[in-house]
Amino acid sequence: MTDYRRLRVALLGAGAVGSQVAALLLRHEDELADRAGARLELAGIAVRDVDAQRDVDLPRELFTTDAESLIVGSDIVIELQGGIEPARTRILQAINSGADIVTANKALLATHGTEIFDAADQVGAQVYYEAAAAAAIPIIRPLRDSLAGDRVQRIIGIVNGTTNYILDRMDTEGAELADVLAEAQRLGYAEADPTADVEGYDAAQKAALLASLAFHTAVPLEAVHREGILGIDRAMMDAARHAGYVIKLLAVCERLSGASDVSASGEAISVRVYPALIARTHPMANVRGVNNAVFVQAEAAGDLMFYGAGAGGVQTASAVLGDVVSAARRHIAGGVGVGESTRANLPVLPIGRVVTSYQITLEVDDLPGVLAAVAGILSEGRVSIATLEQTLAPGDGARARLVIGTHKALEQDLSETVDRLAESDVVERVVSVMRVEGD
Amino acid sequence: MTDYRRLRVALLGAGAVGSQVAALLLRHEDELADRAGARLELAGIAVRDVDAQRDVDLPRELFTTDAESLIVGSDIVIELQGGIEPARTRILQAINSGADIVTANKALLATHGTEIFDAADQVGAQVYYEAAAAAAIPIIRPLRDSLAGDRVQRIIGIVNGTTNYILDRMDTEGAELADVLAEAQRLGYAEADPTADVEGYDAAQKAALLASLAFHTAVPLEAVHREGILGIDRAMMDAARHAGYVIKLLAVCERLSGASDVSASGEAISVRVYPALIARTHPMANVRGVNNAVFVQAEAAGDLMFYGAGAGGVQTASAVLGDVVSAARRHIAGGVGVGESTRANLPVLPIGRVVTSYQITLEVDDLPGVLAAVAGILSEGRVSIATLEQTLAPGDGARARLVIGTHKALEQDLSETVDRLAESDVVERVVSVMRVEGD
Repeated sequence: MTDYRRLRVALLGAGAVGSQVAALLLRHEDELADRAGARLELAGIAVRDVDAQRDVDLPRELFTTDAESLIVGSDIVIELQGGIEPARTRILQAINSGADIVTANKALLATHGTEIFDAADQVGAQVYYEAAAAAAIPIIRPLRDSLAGDRVQRIIGIVNGTTNYILDRMDTEGAELADVLAEAQRLGYAEADPTADVEGYDAAQKAALLASLAFHTAVPLEAVHREGILGIDRAMMDAARHAGYVIKLLAVCERLSGASDVSASGEAISVRVYPALIARTHPMANVRGVNNAVFVQAEAAGDLMFYGAGAGGVQTASAVLGDVVSAARRHIAGGVGVGESTRANLPVLPIGRVVTSYQITLEVDDLPGVLAAVAGILSEGRVSIATLEQTLAPGDGARARLVIGTHKALEQDLSETVDRLAESDVVERVVSVMRVEGD
Repeated sequence: MTDYRRLRVALLGAGAVGSQVAALLLRHEDELADRAGARLELAGIAVRDVDAQRDVDLPRELFTTDAESLIVGSDIVIELQGGIEPARTRILQAINSGADIVTANKALLATHGTEIFDAADQVGAQVYYEAAAAAAIPIIRPLRDSLAGDRVQRIIGIVNGTTNYILDRMDTEGAELADVLAEAQRLGYAEADPTADVEGYDAAQKAALLASLAFHTAVPLEAVHREGILGIDRAMMDAARHAGYVIKLLAVCERLSGASDVSASGEAISVRVYPALIARTHPMANVRGVNNAVFVQAEAAGDLMFYGAGAGGVQTASAVLGDVVSAARRHIAGGVGVGESTRANLPVLPIGRVVTSYQITLEVDDLPGVLAAVAGILSEGRVSIATLEQTLAPGDGARARLVIGTHKALEQDLSETVDRLAESDVVERVVSVMRVEGD
């Protein structure tokens, strides 16, 4: 057995991920030492309640409620408590006491990332967060390092397992959202309070992290446009299927040009999370259940896709341990941490300036001239029609349903046009407006 | 404009990849400086013939035939000449003069990797080679770093674009291999001498690199079992389709247990390249054309898949430039390079000890008792039958064709059993024996 240098590792949090991280650190201690070139000594696990029930049996003497003391003298601090405080304070304490940080805390990084990365830069520490987006799927290093010499044009991510599970079951079983959500809660795929997932907050945090890496720009969470899935119903799912699409909650990070009013180069970015239509032939359409995938389009590399489990304690623990080994290797190698690359500093455009195509479903009176009137409103609004299908509205013979696929249009134009359609005498009801991604 | 430290970058080779690397380094100089935190100054491009035709227009004054002088004083040396010599000598020279290395040279790393990595370790240099396997697809960092805390169980890779293109067209068009190969050569998807691709040498080199990273073991190229695709014909393709499979040239890297005769832990690995059947429902079955994909199964992370372009000058240049930026960041951060992790040192088992399932196609006399005789030979050989289909042999009413799907069996048992079948009176001909992967 090689006599390795010993590194003191402090773990904050012993929930679903933390308890697996502790168990794997202990079980694979020798193997991890061989890989890291250093022995990773788990000095302790800081928790709120030492006697709480854990997912995994762990030696009781490792637990402490005193995170502050545990951090002192640690080489690597793994923060898996989640939430903003006390996680933020503990991470800053750890950085200032000379530790490298491993965290899966997307909420914290998306809101206080700049503060934390700046603090790390000051002392030459490194912050690792492979587990903060898409769990076990390696996406942080590919964006941060492998694609560092390329220009990412677009990322389309399915980065929230709960909502993908819900939408997938609605699609395959024709179920209603409320029923699937209730079952997901029973199965443990959704939280008792599902707001963070179904309202898109979790996906928006991950989108902010991915966009920051891809575009070398600190993207604040407030700049991410966010819509959840609660408005999606079975009829919209059926209509999507009928048109060759599936509805997915997508995190879209996009490089845009022609924005010379906000940047000298005319370049800007858009970061948005919303349910959108995606063609069934697109690789992202086949991401099923609680899985995640990230589709990346880069100028030189072309299309790339990363696929895997987007949640789960042991899966996320894999990403955390990869970071721990990386941190240990860096400790042995010496040198200061490599800071985040944010110097491109591209402006983030509001949703109104995004260009996508749309599918608009209208209920209209089944009378001559209605189609011409609708087409006229679209044309005036600079929204060009690509496809049009007219069917009878369900349950009412006097009304027709128009499903209009548009060419690419400016969101602001589209939005104003939809308002005008809604006010028009010939339109009974705007049934739905869905963006189409992935063409 | 920030006044960055300047790093001297030497480029060896200006072929399809090298010329794109040079063009991108020049075109994106400011942007790359912002990302790397250092200005990447292309000091020169060493080539054999300064006046040769290039894919991209580059300033003539950059070219030199004197690689040795160009390397002197360089911080980063990008080796894209390919082949063993003079690439090996130049890389060793560069390492010993204090440079970090970026290379896409899989042939060199698979044969002289240990020598090069050891030389880098001696002086604290780092060798980057994201482009050496699967071109633009980030797979080296995910295996090396993101999964460094996990235990990889199996990798199934489609890592050669040329053979995937050939097999894909045979599958979708019912074409014969020789015709598709000829067309691939006309289209530039296959070399004039296609040996490295169609005989599996290129895939075997990549398999050695992936297995080395995944299993923390220096895997010599000679330990990789290799079979090419030249034996695949239309009839085998048709039979595969009929059974719900597709034939792909797969690089399989697998952790095996129960090998206590060769290792104290009983753990060993197998690294092999061969055409195999894979179920059409498997994500790898849908990797089309010249694309590549790597499917990774890890103990904690579960199933992961990485997908993208597996070849192409500009695509590969993306991976090279990511490495150049990483090398620059490391130069700025200081510290020594992180060596390869090879301390697990697992033995590589010969092909005879691999366990997979098989599809055996036999031509037999259509007589009573033949099936019993065949089943007897399989049973004696410890090969258990999972499925069996009997059809008439094409063109001969007196013969039947037996397609036997086996349960998992030891390759050595299978191989001996097939020999016995071939010698048996009741078997006219062993039409084909294909391994089945990905169950």
